[in-house]
Amino acid sequence: MPEHVATSDRTRLVREPQRAVYDRELIYKILDEGFVCHVGFTADGQTFVIPTMYARVGDALYFHGSAASRMLRGVSTGLNVCITVTLADGLVLARSVFNHSMNYRSAVALGNATIVDEAKEKLDALRAFTEKIMPGRWNDARQPNEKELRATSILRLPLTEISAKVRTGGVEDDAEDYALPVWAGVVPLRLVADAPLRDERCDPALPTPAYAADFRSREG
Amino acid sequence: MPEHVATSDRTRLVREPQRAVYDRELIYKILDEGFVCHVGFTADGQTFVIPTMYARVGDALYFHGSAASRMLRGVSTGLNVCITVTLADGLVLARSVFNHSMNYRSAVALGNATIVDEAKEKLDALRAFTEKIMPGRWNDARQPNEKELRATSILRLPLTEISAKVRTGGVEDDAEDYALPVWAGVVPLRLVADAPLRDERCDPALPTPAYAADFRSREG
Repeated sequence: MPEHVATSDRTRLVREPQRAVYDRELIYKILDEGFVCHVGFTADGQTFVIPTMYARVGDALYFHGSAASRMLRGVSTGLNVCITVTLADGLVLARSVFNHSMNYRSAVALGNATIVDEAKEKLDALRAFTEKIMPGRWNDARQPNEKELRATSILRLPLTEISAKVRTGGVEDDAEDYALPVWAGVVPLRLVADAPLRDERCDPALPTPAYAADFRSREG
Repeated sequence: MPEHVATSDRTRLVREPQRAVYDRELIYKILDEGFVCHVGFTADGQTFVIPTMYARVGDALYFHGSAASRMLRGVSTGLNVCITVTLADGLVLARSVFNHSMNYRSAVALGNATIVDEAKEKLDALRAFTEKIMPGRWNDARQPNEKELRATSILRLPLTEISAKVRTGGVEDDAEDYALPVWAGVVPLRLVADAPLRDERCDPALPTPAYAADFRSREG
């Protein structure tokens, strides 16, 4: 049985409720596939949205705070944030412009983010950032020393108030539009990687690791 | 001469100022390449970040309001928003985990968004949404009728307070780490399209248009 997340007025979808997902497992799958999130917060009366890297560890989402020093002001009591992860899956070309759409999966987490002070938890979060994208990289690379750990700002958001919105499938046209001689269909989208570019100072004798050579996407 | 955008306390980059871009032409290039933006706004004391489609027309950014009925409350006086567009260009694998990074281009626009009431302006915005991704689609598909136009919520944000942040190039390691026997380099990322999937109710005699068959990315 999928665990359904309790909805609140803030996470319940008003628009297009048929696209709503409140199944925790499905929401986590979206969070685990993406690696760039958009963090929204308000400072001095202005809303900011900043992209940063993140990883889920259990029922918490960890994200880099260094990208946004603004968000760290007064964060000891917790900073109200909205974190959104969006995966673009396809362009939906209907016969009418009005019914054009996009296939996508988008997860949203609301709550108070707090700074991670504990070295072990910070290290676990950094490992998760690395390993979710490039499994094996953590052990290959030089791991953070104490000074680097101190210089790294990581924030934690408990995944309590979460939801997702998903559109999949094909074209949906108005009944009378199906007779139009207009090509209709879906153009699938995918994030892929090209061949890795070796750093010029990297010994040519070092083999390219599989996680870099074969990286495509979380789906690929 | 590139036109430099005047910085404000709100758009000036505090962290990693060497990655800041205040050249309007470069910022517009980022906005024109992406097609999903993240709109941040605050309602009832909570910040929300919602993905939606958008297009730039001249010095304004138009975006779909239908994705977020919440943001339309009280919007007649303008809704304070932050709109961010992020393009992921590559994963940077340094010899140390601490120096791992990402190549990306991210544009941010701050300001007050207002609802577009005028039919002609709304139509122009919808055309821009379509044509920026699939040039030629607007004339192929059935264009919006009056009823559809009324049912469409479009918001306009003047592009006055804008900035961008860009990381390009290769690995940057600490001097002493270059001696480590660790593979280092960049894995380039790209959004691509797979072969279009024709709608099952689409006449097989209708040729697949070039904008769908050859769609890759704005760069590709």
